[in-house]
Amino acid sequence: MRAKWTDLAMEARGSVPVSDVRLKSGIERTVVRIEDEQTARELGRPQGTYVTLSCPQTMTIELSMREALSRELAQAIRQMLPEHARTVLVTGLGNRSVTPDALGPRTVERVLVTRHMDGCLPDDVSARMASVCAAAPGVLGVTGLETAEVLRGMAEHVQPDAVIAVDALAARSSARICSTIQIADTGISPGSGVGNHQKALTRETLGAPVIAVGVPMVVYASTIASDAMSDMIREDGGTEADEEKVAACVERVVSERLGDLIVTPREVDALVERMAGILAEGINLALHPGLSREEIEQLMAT
Amino acid sequence: MRAKWTDLAMEARGSVPVSDVRLKSGIERTVVRIEDEQTARELGRPQGTYVTLSCPQTMTIELSMREALSRELAQAIRQMLPEHARTVLVTGLGNRSVTPDALGPRTVERVLVTRHMDGCLPDDVSARMASVCAAAPGVLGVTGLETAEVLRGMAEHVQPDAVIAVDALAARSSARICSTIQIADTGISPGSGVGNHQKALTRETLGAPVIAVGVPMVVYASTIASDAMSDMIREDGGTEADEEKVAACVERVVSERLGDLIVTPREVDALVERMAGILAEGINLALHPGLSREEIEQLMAT
Amino acid sequence: MRAKWTDLAMEARGSVPVSDVRLKSGIERTVVRIEDEQTARELGRPQGTYVTLSCPQTMTIELSMREALSRELAQAIRQMLPEHARTVLVTGLGNRSVTPDALGPRTVERVLVTRHMDGCLPDDVSARMASVCAAAPGVLGVTGLETAEVLRGMAEHVQPDAVIAVDALAARSSARICSTIQIADTGISPGSGVGNHQKALTRETLGAPVIAVGVPMVVYASTIASDAMSDMIREDGGTEADEEKVAACVERVVSERLGDLIVTPREVDALVERMAGILAEGINLALHPGLSREEIEQLMAT
Amino acid sequence: MRAKWTDLAMEARGSVPVSDVRLKSGIERTVVRIEDEQTARELGRPQGTYVTLSCPQTMTIELSMREALSRELAQAIRQMLPEHARTVLVTGLGNRSVTPDALGPRTVERVLVTRHMDGCLPDDVSARMASVCAAAPGVLGVTGLETAEVLRGMAEHVQPDAVIAVDALAARSSARICSTIQIADTGISPGSGVGNHQKALTRETLGAPVIAVGVPMVVYASTIASDAMSDMIREDGGTEADEEKVAACVERVVSERLGDLIVTPREVDALVERMAGILAEGINLALHPGLSREEIEQLMAT
Repeated sequence: MRAKWTDLAMEARGSVPVSDVRLKSGIERTVVRIEDEQTARELGRPQGTYVTLSCPQTMTIELSMREALSRELAQAIRQMLPEHARTVLVTGLGNRSVTPDALGPRTVERVLVTRHMDGCLPDDVSARMASVCAAAPGVLGVTGLETAEVLRGMAEHVQPDAVIAVDALAARSSARICSTIQIADTGISPGSGVGNHQKALTRETLGAPVIAVGVPMVVYASTIASDAMSDMIREDGGTEADEEKVAACVERVVSERLGDLIVTPREVDALVERMAGILAEGINLALHPGLSREEIEQLMAT
Repeated sequence: MRAKWTDLAMEARGSVPVSDVRLKSGIERTVVRIEDEQTARELGRPQGTYVTLSCPQTMTIELSMREALSRELAQAIRQMLPEHARTVLVTGLGNRSVTPDALGPRTVERVLVTRHMDGCLPDDVSARMASVCAAAPGVLGVTGLETAEVLRGMAEHVQPDAVIAVDALAARSSARICSTIQIADTGISPGSGVGNHQKALTRETLGAPVIAVGVPMVVYASTIASDAMSDMIREDGGTEADEEKVAACVERVVSERLGDLIVTPREVDALVERMAGILAEGINLALHPGLSREEIEQLMAT
Repeated sequence: MRAKWTDLAMEARGSVPVSDVRLKSGIERTVVRIEDEQTARELGRPQGTYVTLSCPQTMTIELSMREALSRELAQAIRQMLPEHARTVLVTGLGNRSVTPDALGPRTVERVLVTRHMDGCLPDDVSARMASVCAAAPGVLGVTGLETAEVLRGMAEHVQPDAVIAVDALAARSSARICSTIQIADTGISPGSGVGNHQKALTRETLGAPVIAVGVPMVVYASTIASDAMSDMIREDGGTEADEEKVAACVERVVSERLGDLIVTPREVDALVERMAGILAEGINLALHPGLSREEIEQLMAT
Repeated sequence: MRAKWTDLAMEARGSVPVSDVRLKSGIERTVVRIEDEQTARELGRPQGTYVTLSCPQTMTIELSMREALSRELAQAIRQMLPEHARTVLVTGLGNRSVTPDALGPRTVERVLVTRHMDGCLPDDVSARMASVCAAAPGVLGVTGLETAEVLRGMAEHVQPDAVIAVDALAARSSARICSTIQIADTGISPGSGVGNHQKALTRETLGAPVIAVGVPMVVYASTIASDAMSDMIREDGGTEADEEKVAACVERVVSERLGDLIVTPREVDALVERMAGILAEGINLALHPGLSREEIEQLMAT
């Protein structure tokens, strides 16, 4: 039962102070810093900086908001990248065949890959571009391989200056779905939300700093159900939900015999494409600061 | 707000008596008959016979259960087909690009289509086969065409003896997802669960009896949340949920700014394939009673 | 054996005079007019006007060329549309599951569909937009339904002022693949290149003028082989290829036991996406002359 | 220009003697052994054993032929596997987004993966199963990573007893497409047919024997054209084709400005599925000799 799970630090932050800025574009940028081990243990996530970009949750996204999101994402990534990072491995976690989970693989398909052109480009072009490689290693249940095993092997050969890992997240609140991007300098534990305890992707395991980029695509059904009940109890003047009673009710309405029950927008296929496009644009702008949006678009054209 | 909606007659049946049989295969067959107009109005669905096949909800389906389901489905369809039906139009409703909604289109892809071979096959083969055509007309929001408009045009040219319409359903209970097949001789209203009031597909609109075949792939998130609350109220000895209060709580946890929020198993892509395979097998067996399972498989081979 | 087949009037034109203009954008516009019945019979295609837009054949298309192509396509379509056409049915012919054949279905997915919003939009917006519906009816071998049967049914209900039919073509020369767009006011015979003699889509069958838009995606392997041989014979000073001898050689190297052997670029999947994008942009600009490219992009956004 | 290229040793074998057996099932098994370095140089491929299974080239495959092919493939693989091989890495080479090239990735999707269940299964089951992991590493142009780099990293962590590498091949003759399976104990050079000289996948680079399994899905258009011309010259009593003249004619009819022009059956999408199914069945039977076809099917069920 995954009641009340969230992958967003800003939802889990408890009493940790945050800095919160509303930008001109209408995006809100929130920064949570987990700075000591005790806080990390309390919040169940590693020490580091978690930046969240939030925008209004809308059926159709304005093209200007789309551009603002990718620009802010690029800036957040650049602040976490080591100076003079030249070789970067971008990896899309998750299962390509599970729609909301496909965000990572769908993003890396749109990342501008350049490492195979090292040495083939004119110097003036190549000076403005990073050396980028990209891979979606698939998930343990499909490949029989732990994500960290696969990526460690790649990292040993590529020796990247940084790794960017893109993953779909689970939020606590359905208002966060597709309206929030989290960028963290902490690395990432693949499948952590799914309860598969795999090796984390961190500087320790991959030999380079790991920047995690994620977007909530789902809320667990058990979270929705138990939050509705807690809300009602508060409404009735109750102070504290009876955890056990809530859990028993959740179990009756949430059948998990087919695995996790998740809550998504019906249009999640189209929303995955939207968000994959925005993430890839942001990553491309971050990694190739010498290229304009138009130059990147032309290089991606077929 | 789609709280408490169900496309399953057996969940909505109120006090209508049902016949209920557990078959040797472990499948439960339930028959709900709505026989007068008042009951129809009370239950919000047309008069007719609704057969439901239920099996255990399991991560991996036993091949023997799969065969039993398609065999029982074939029998239920055959009992609703007009005698000597020779020409049948099978149609898959729903949006191919929305995963749980793709059940209909994915099913028709696996239906054995034979109408274009009329007159080309040896007599002894053709005597054992129906003349079947199949189409997935898409949804109004994508094509700008009402499903009934498209199908009426087809039916006028094809003059089928019967229409079989396959659609993904919404259930009230998550325990019904992918464990239930409903077969009804009542026709179907495309998008009725989605609140788009389009013309129904019935004998009146299509000129031939319409057999509806559906499988619940989703529960509305608002249903899960409100059912959890009602359950809790009953648990607390409450008799009746305060509808308005429940609705207000649901609205706070169910953000519908991205359209309907639905609850599905995370593995819904694979489950759609599972169920599309079972439905197509059942339809193929029903329409070509002169062919064995193996002959159909060979005719479908590429 | 489909040696020497072409769907392009400009390749088949024989001695028909053409008008040929090179535009500033680098696009060449050629117009072939078949104006009497005898010429139509000689060329094996109906009377009417065939406009061809040609651009350089390149691995990566310049974004400026892409825009020029869609702009010229829009203009060519507008010249063939009846004045004051308000309701238009756009249809994508061909088989979605056969990569080069999927051009039509992939194009209609990107057409801005508006008919279902008739009456829902503010007057000032709706005055600038046509009422567009779009459908990909599939192919006879998959649906058991003739394309003309399906479209006639739709046209009877929609009563369009014009039909635009998009299809993948076969060229005579591999240099034409993805570098040529043909627009004709003659209607189209689905599967004509494939040798399935189905009813044509014309003003007679659909009750509205039919504008055919196509792009060569393949050359038949038998064409490539026999053209190579004819070329060699000419090179050797031979005047006329011995048709029978050539056909016998072709048969030895072109195995048609798996159906038509076709010649395509290896990257045909990506090229189908490129061309579907260009065609849809051109169609959208033609049908909604009151909207800018940016407004259309925003209306298509998800 | 890739005229006359073939990935099949039996087409390139020159004067190397072969053993050739027609099996009861109608399959022909041919074995080519390249046993010394000079022959290897002459044929442009490494020393080792190349087994070819050939069956009739048919639009629809008989289910009995399908089973015979997978059974023979399983046997050929088993004869090349090291005794007591327990851990096997299956890898699908090629680009998932290029239809004929997707054979490898589509095959590994259907391989029964078991490594992640090591230690979780009852002893009696696990004794009958190998420990299998599977991955499709993508291609250099998409990932920026050499296939050998990625696989070497995986192999270092997994330490497999053998690697099975599945790839789509180019044949010399169109009669070989989808009617031939080649199994070789020599390893494989990814993209060798494509002219990208990447590191080979061999015992030396991966630390375990590499069994290559491939099926011809294409012939190069330049091969078809030049073979037609050579055939005609022979027909005319010519002894030797004038290489240069042939190449010039090929260049005129084969436009390579969009990359390689390839010859495939129009139905190649469906044929890739057919062959991926047969290869995966053969690999599954080879790796889990303790399991029946039915047990494997049940373990793959969803």
